[in-house]
Amino acid sequence: MVHNMVAESLNQVAKALLQRQSILILTHKNPDGDTLGSGFALYYALKQFGKNAAVICSDQFPEKYAYMLKGYTEEEFEPDLVVAVDIADPQLLGGKLSCYADSVDICIDHHISNQHYAALSYVDGGAAATCEIMASLLEEMGADIDRTIANCLYTGLATDTGCFKFSNTTAGTHRAAADLIEIGCDYEVINREMFDTKSRGRIMVEREVLDQIGFYFRNQVAVIVISQELVHATGIEPTEIDGITGLPRQIEGVEVGITLREKESGGYKVSVRTCRFVDASEVCQKLGGGGHQRAAGCVVDAPLEEAKQTLIDVLEPYFLK
Amino acid sequence: MVHNMVAESLNQVAKALLQRQSILILTHKNPDGDTLGSGFALYYALKQFGKNAAVICSDQFPEKYAYMLKGYTEEEFEPDLVVAVDIADPQLLGGKLSCYADSVDICIDHHISNQHYAALSYVDGGAAATCEIMASLLEEMGADIDRTIANCLYTGLATDTGCFKFSNTTAGTHRAAADLIEIGCDYEVINREMFDTKSRGRIMVEREVLDQIGFYFRNQVAVIVISQELVHATGIEPTEIDGITGLPRQIEGVEVGITLREKESGGYKVSVRTCRFVDASEVCQKLGGGGHQRAAGCVVDAPLEEAKQTLIDVLEPYFLK
Repeated sequence: MVHNMVAESLNQVAKALLQRQSILILTHKNPDGDTLGSGFALYYALKQFGKNAAVICSDQFPEKYAYMLKGYTEEEFEPDLVVAVDIADPQLLGGKLSCYADSVDICIDHHISNQHYAALSYVDGGAAATCEIMASLLEEMGADIDRTIANCLYTGLATDTGCFKFSNTTAGTHRAAADLIEIGCDYEVINREMFDTKSRGRIMVEREVLDQIGFYFRNQVAVIVISQELVHATGIEPTEIDGITGLPRQIEGVEVGITLREKESGGYKVSVRTCRFVDASEVCQKLGGGGHQRAAGCVVDAPLEEAKQTLIDVLEPYFLK
Repeated sequence: MVHNMVAESLNQVAKALLQRQSILILTHKNPDGDTLGSGFALYYALKQFGKNAAVICSDQFPEKYAYMLKGYTEEEFEPDLVVAVDIADPQLLGGKLSCYADSVDICIDHHISNQHYAALSYVDGGAAATCEIMASLLEEMGADIDRTIANCLYTGLATDTGCFKFSNTTAGTHRAAADLIEIGCDYEVINREMFDTKSRGRIMVEREVLDQIGFYFRNQVAVIVISQELVHATGIEPTEIDGITGLPRQIEGVEVGITLREKESGGYKVSVRTCRFVDASEVCQKLGGGGHQRAAGCVVDAPLEEAKQTLIDVLEPYFLK
């Protein structure tokens, strides 16, 4: 195996891409706006240079990103270069693409946890999204960032930052968005689709969990439960459930928002979100899980009431001062 | 009365401000992030130049903007200059400040509908927020945009654009935000407070309206009702109710989202939000109201079921093709 290298500059990556003729672009499983946005932006840029190119994924492209595929044509070719975008770890290739785990030539990513599994990696942990890196890379390549490409890149910037809301947003993210808006990207339509559209299933789940929400420690802890029965009754998608875990923490005065999601096999997948003084990661570590300071997770294999009590017991020390 | 003038440049406004010693800053009634953000940003800048200054409002400053007042001291003085920020019409001064309606010296605003009631007006309808104009004005004045001022300005940019989501956001808005982030504004905390915090009253109202939501025309029209009883039972604030009117349109497949808000005197204040092909303004005009293409309002003075039927009748032609 050749020793894996870290790219010295985006220019090096740009040159490596332009030297080849047939480029296969890999996106991560459970694809999101950033992996697809950077993948398709690169695709359209490569087509400008007369390359063969394709974007593939272990899972289907979700319907809401269909606008990115409007100028896309499936083509058959033997790749002479394999590029992974927004994929920190080969495990995230998913089942269908796992065969590429050892043969990724270039990886472009913004996760500092990137495993450097590619022959050449360009990782910028300071970028809010891989799309932020991709915008600079396409400039290095001399590509014409047209409206189609701008829509792809904007999608990744917006989705990975909660529409410029989260702490990963930087001045650079905003300046990249400014450039894309100047090019004429359809940011209003994209944002409405990404942030202001909920399926009826999701609305039904939100209604149900709000009906059943439990408060503890003088309303500083809010707990919601998403049962298997509810998931089946509403047909909610797993990606939509992820969005609901933010709900309990949104309530004024709530320091810890907890979502108990029933597993198919019984027991609960627990998501813990905190606001200010409780370390979510510390809480979840006590139950064998982990994560970040403000968002962490663990699994509690117990019936519902017991699972709730387990969490309350772990949280008690934070609220008894 | 002296003929009212349009400012030729921000520099002219900056000079007019710096020539005076005691400046009174007026913000609009039901104050929002933009009027308070631009008002307090100007206040802190004027203090840098050793001026007397005060920010006043007909209504109380809402608690969630308290961080803007951290360096603020009430002071008594006789103003020699009265400045209105983000106030398109003297009616928006509200009861307590209505005495200033004819004596505003300078108005700084981003509403194209501005009535030019001030002796000198600077109105830029292309700016997403008055804070976007204020950022440039403070630069013209030679003020040092520190973290306190940056927090005020960022608040107006974010709140008036739905965190850079809506169509009024421009490349300039993003570039202004980038500058403020570089200065070190606390955008994450501000955004969580503005966009990801809901009162328990609001959560209760959301749960109730989702329980009662009605769908018409193959789920393309969604109707929610906020009764006086619900408002009183939950203690929800009027500004929070405004946020709920966006809810029915968020549901996938819904073209028209309608909120019927019961008036204290009976009858309903109707908010109509649309997605693509129904002109909300046209719908509301048919019922004596008006507004914009995607968001409009009217009043229907009838009992609930009759009010609903009135709306359904008006909407029918759009869905029977």
